[in-house]
Amino acid sequence: MTAAWRSVLPHLGYDLPPDLTPSQAAGPVSTGLPLELVRQSVSLREWWDIPEEVVAQYRKYRPTPLWRATAFEREVDARVPVYVKYEGGNISGSHKLNTALAQAFYYKRAGITEVVTGTGAGQWGTALAAACAAFGLRCTVFMVGGSLRDKPYRGSLMRLLGATVHASPSGLTSLTEGGNSLALAIGEAVEYARGGEGRAFCIGSGENYSILHQSVIGLEAIEQLDALGAEVDTVVGSVGAGSNFGGIALPFHARHRAGEAEAVRLLAVESSATPKLTRGVYAYDHTDATGSGPMEAMYSIGSSFSIPASHSAGLRFHGAAKLLSAMRHHGSVDAVAVGQREALDAGRRFAVSELVVPAPESGHALAGAARAARESTRGVLVCVSGHGLLDLSAYDQLLAGQVRDLAADEAALAAATAGLRLVEADLTGVK
Amino acid sequence: MTAAWRSVLPHLGYDLPPDLTPSQAAGPVSTGLPLELVRQSVSLREWWDIPEEVVAQYRKYRPTPLWRATAFEREVDARVPVYVKYEGGNISGSHKLNTALAQAFYYKRAGITEVVTGTGAGQWGTALAAACAAFGLRCTVFMVGGSLRDKPYRGSLMRLLGATVHASPSGLTSLTEGGNSLALAIGEAVEYARGGEGRAFCIGSGENYSILHQSVIGLEAIEQLDALGAEVDTVVGSVGAGSNFGGIALPFHARHRAGEAEAVRLLAVESSATPKLTRGVYAYDHTDATGSGPMEAMYSIGSSFSIPASHSAGLRFHGAAKLLSAMRHHGSVDAVAVGQREALDAGRRFAVSELVVPAPESGHALAGAARAARESTRGVLVCVSGHGLLDLSAYDQLLAGQVRDLAADEAALAAATAGLRLVEADLTGVK
Repeated sequence: MTAAWRSVLPHLGYDLPPDLTPSQAAGPVSTGLPLELVRQSVSLREWWDIPEEVVAQYRKYRPTPLWRATAFEREVDARVPVYVKYEGGNISGSHKLNTALAQAFYYKRAGITEVVTGTGAGQWGTALAAACAAFGLRCTVFMVGGSLRDKPYRGSLMRLLGATVHASPSGLTSLTEGGNSLALAIGEAVEYARGGEGRAFCIGSGENYSILHQSVIGLEAIEQLDALGAEVDTVVGSVGAGSNFGGIALPFHARHRAGEAEAVRLLAVESSATPKLTRGVYAYDHTDATGSGPMEAMYSIGSSFSIPASHSAGLRFHGAAKLLSAMRHHGSVDAVAVGQREALDAGRRFAVSELVVPAPESGHALAGAARAARESTRGVLVCVSGHGLLDLSAYDQLLAGQVRDLAADEAALAAATAGLRLVEADLTGVK
Repeated sequence: MTAAWRSVLPHLGYDLPPDLTPSQAAGPVSTGLPLELVRQSVSLREWWDIPEEVVAQYRKYRPTPLWRATAFEREVDARVPVYVKYEGGNISGSHKLNTALAQAFYYKRAGITEVVTGTGAGQWGTALAAACAAFGLRCTVFMVGGSLRDKPYRGSLMRLLGATVHASPSGLTSLTEGGNSLALAIGEAVEYARGGEGRAFCIGSGENYSILHQSVIGLEAIEQLDALGAEVDTVVGSVGAGSNFGGIALPFHARHRAGEAEAVRLLAVESSATPKLTRGVYAYDHTDATGSGPMEAMYSIGSSFSIPASHSAGLRFHGAAKLLSAMRHHGSVDAVAVGQREALDAGRRFAVSELVVPAPESGHALAGAARAARESTRGVLVCVSGHGLLDLSAYDQLLAGQVRDLAADEAALAAATAGLRLVEADLTGVK
């Protein structure tokens, strides 16, 4: 198993645009962040030894499987081999556990006794609950109330792992406005974390350190492909903020930039309902809807953009991680947007052929992989970031013909991005 | 990966008591059974090459993980190492897929185009649906109506895999009496299978051939323990009819009888609500409540015993497989009964420590393993036969203090077994 994470930062050849701190003294992300996570976010160090205690936890589910999906290839008329890296086999059901374990370890070492977070569909909350069980930390999760009612098993799983789960709005904080939104749940978590001794707020994806932790996915995949004597020219992943895509794709970029291998195409697959990489702007924007955190340089459809409900809650984010955004801006990352019907149908085809039910989010990656497999000449690697066993109602609706695609409205996009300060306009020297 | 199944039949040193055919011409089990499955049930051949097509499917999820559960050991104060063999990582969520794939292959080769089955909680139906998707067979499942309503995701998963799912009673057959029972669902499946060209009824566990197919579990475990340099003196599994227990345990018995290794203790863990191995009689009984099939020699609490609803639907069976029963009768298998509260608590401890949610059925095995780990001197191997992600409501109720143990009533047991013909009385020469 991989003993170190690999950072792509030293291989970029440029600096990431700095965050713009708002007037408030501290945003959610910087609340009590352990020093090691800060270092992992900014340092140009390439290799980071994975702490022994985290390795011991990784061993419970890593290395994760990689296989050639020959039955899926036939199902989608692929002209080249398609290899699948599957991250859904752990208790949290997704890749999120890779960074949750690392973060729980660093928070515990920093003297924190209780971590607090907000979660939408619950994958991140479940991963953090599992990580806290592993490291003996208390865990408090504010989950979007509507999601918790629609998917009660997510709450059950977090509670089974010892976490305290509050439906948001919870009545425990000053925040009550904002309805059923992740922004509200996160806002509540931030306020709750500030209100108690030994508490820290903790966030699941989009940050450089979480993408670093996810590099285990791509590093393992490279070793596994080598062991099979297999070659790929395209690496595909779905993008919510970018942590599973960054995890599988960026080690390939680092390897190439270090002169160890040829370049491969990195293909990010986003939802057509939140098309930041294909139809957004590269601008300074808030990472949440409350506007309390720093502004980051990212591809965005605007933090005020009203995102419709969909079957892929994990992709319902208005921006892409700043690292991924910069790489997109510099031409190192390709992107394509996929509708949820195509995504769920790709997920169904994968389930029937490979006997694994993918999460709807991962269905997007599979749809992208099916497209890429008609363009690639050597082979495609795709990350299936999670299982869909708690999302089966989405497939029910697909089979019943009730799923419709949700393409973002042009006028709404224009309105939501109108006030953003473009990165080119503000920081031309950075580009 | 294991290339052959290993039969324990040549190592028993005695014959199994023959089935007693009832007046009806054909029982459910013998309806269109492919010749190879008949041979696997009666032959004294030891090794059976796994068909190449089945191996190709096994490779999608096998070998399954085996690991030393050090965190669980601490959780239960184990004095010896506890090794876990985990069969819940495949799409069906349990070990049932091991035999479903083999059966689907043999039925297809025998010219069958549609397999039909009855399922209670849905694990077997899901496994068969997945196997039919893999081999291009039509699959029709009659599922106990109440279970289907309580656990709709089981139905969703089967449908996603292409199966047709009917809530039983379905109105499609002459059978309408019998309420929400597995016996009724099976009865409907048998009648429906008889009514169409190319259809066959198919059954999930308890038969010698399904236990043979499950031997991949134990054969793999032996190799994996050897690779770790680990030794165990006790092998533990939960018992519904006996296929996962037989799968993990019997290869150890065969190995010992073949002079390849020392004997180990084989510990079957049953539910205290259906205590056939610890409080039943060794007698001739029906395998279902309709009484249409042959009578088999088995440990039974009586096919007329009214089994209460519980959180471990997979253990709600009145008898043990005839092979397992004979071995129990001859002293080769130990047994213990565990209440569902102890079982769910063991499951919870395992989830928190090892980051895998076990099925409530597997919680029984873990409770038995925790007990055995205080008696063993060298080490314990336990089979966790399935995941509990679709059974989280059971854990909710455990955390809420609402789970009570269900011990079978003495008078009810006596009444349900009163009319059975004991094996000793009828066939004294067999013993």
